[in-house]
Amino acid sequence: MEIAVEDRAVQDRLAALEARVRRLEDSEEIAQLIASYGPLVDDGDAESVAQLWDRRGSYDVDGLSMTGRDDIAAMVRSRPHQGLIAEGCAHLLGPVRVHVDGDSAVAVCHSLLIRHGDHGFVVHRATANHFTLDRAADGWRIGCRTSRALDGQERAHLLLGAGARGEHL
Amino acid sequence: MEIAVEDRAVQDRLAALEARVRRLEDSEEIAQLIASYGPLVDDGDAESVAQLWDRRGSYDVDGLSMTGRDDIAAMVRSRPHQGLIAEGCAHLLGPVRVHVDGDSAVAVCHSLLIRHGDHGFVVHRATANHFTLDRAADGWRIGCRTSRALDGQERAHLLLGAGARGEHL
Amino acid sequence: MEIAVEDRAVQDRLAALEARVRRLEDSEEIAQLIASYGPLVDDGDAESVAQLWDRRGSYDVDGLSMTGRDDIAAMVRSRPHQGLIAEGCAHLLGPVRVHVDGDSAVAVCHSLLIRHGDHGFVVHRATANHFTLDRAADGWRIGCRTSRALDGQERAHLLLGAGARGEHL
Repeated sequence: MEIAVEDRAVQDRLAALEARVRRLEDSEEIAQLIASYGPLVDDGDAESVAQLWDRRGSYDVDGLSMTGRDDIAAMVRSRPHQGLIAEGCAHLLGPVRVHVDGDSAVAVCHSLLIRHGDHGFVVHRATANHFTLDRAADGWRIGCRTSRALDGQERAHLLLGAGARGEHL
Repeated sequence: MEIAVEDRAVQDRLAALEARVRRLEDSEEIAQLIASYGPLVDDGDAESVAQLWDRRGSYDVDGLSMTGRDDIAAMVRSRPHQGLIAEGCAHLLGPVRVHVDGDSAVAVCHSLLIRHGDHGFVVHRATANHFTLDRAADGWRIGCRTSRALDGQERAHLLLGAGARGEHL
Repeated sequence: MEIAVEDRAVQDRLAALEARVRRLEDSEEIAQLIASYGPLVDDGDAESVAQLWDRRGSYDVDGLSMTGRDDIAAMVRSRPHQGLIAEGCAHLLGPVRVHVDGDSAVAVCHSLLIRHGDHGFVVHRATANHFTLDRAADGWRIGCRTSRALDGQERAHLLLGAGARGEHL
């Protein structure tokens, strides 16, 4: 009898640990996914960038709306993006704030696009980024990324607050 | 007898895991707390920014000393801060180095204030940030944040080293 | 008999948890190690910076190749680096993407060197950073750090992609 009771306590502690570890893994995996965007896009690795998104994922950035991996890969291969790489650029995304809710998640971060030119390096753009993510069979993927330049447009600031509070758009 | 011995070994492994998971959770929760400052302050969400601090928490930044959540919320609502948002700005805080010691912690990071203006984006300020944090009933909160512009003043550089070594100020 | 079976299940769950927690700890420890570089180097703490590397670790940055902790500490104490600190600077490293494989790891991140001068703050350099790390008796240490300015040189962009895919150089 005593053994059975203790055993149930062990089962409960194991289950609690498994849930806590899974939560940490989810948060870490999403942070790693987003941390790989900048290095991959600056290397021009179109396939790997596209794989960060879900098959039907979207990327909506000022004046440009992409849907699906082909669209995203095409942006990386486009003349404007390849021109950035040729001159030197850094897409630096800041640390993400992540809210995980079961099999979906919301994340938010700032990003900077630093460009190299004749007079050295400049901040070409500072951007607000809101992500929704979904758990797929083989890991987390981006469902929607919405990005707006922080140039005074209200929408950009709203994205940041919504993401930090874990709200969908 | 054999069962009892094994059971003690299971208890020990469970306790060790629980301690390790709690350490990871503490570190992650503090990183998430600090990662939400920039997005919230750039959205002008005064209440949510203030809630990152302990009820009696302080924020000491060059030439401005705030104590308690009302002071911090007032800074977010102030004309100068609202002016930054209206023109476009990004408070980008870098990844934090965190030292947790029981129910208190020290964290450190750089931050950049990027502003948008007539000639595009500029780095308005690079800042050293030292945090002390305390575990409250409902999670970690900032006790003291001390920030100094990295404009050559010795104090700013000292803050960074102290924080990286887990030292209080 | 039933107890023995259940016990084996408990052992398996404990072992699985221990492996998952260790993976999270490895990733977190490496992120923390790299997050301490900027604050320590901006404080001029030569000894602590050198300790981030393995005894035989190397740091290869455009035009400068260092091997061993003495070389790295000497760079921190050098007149050029001390000059940066005296005028005000921020070595801000972005969030790292880490791949751990047993006792070795690859990590990648962008970094910015922000300098203060007569006309305020400027982005002096944006850099690609590729790290290999090894697990030592007392924790993870940097084996090789390879850094190249993102000024249009192809090598810098290749470093980023390799690191993001977990490849050695």
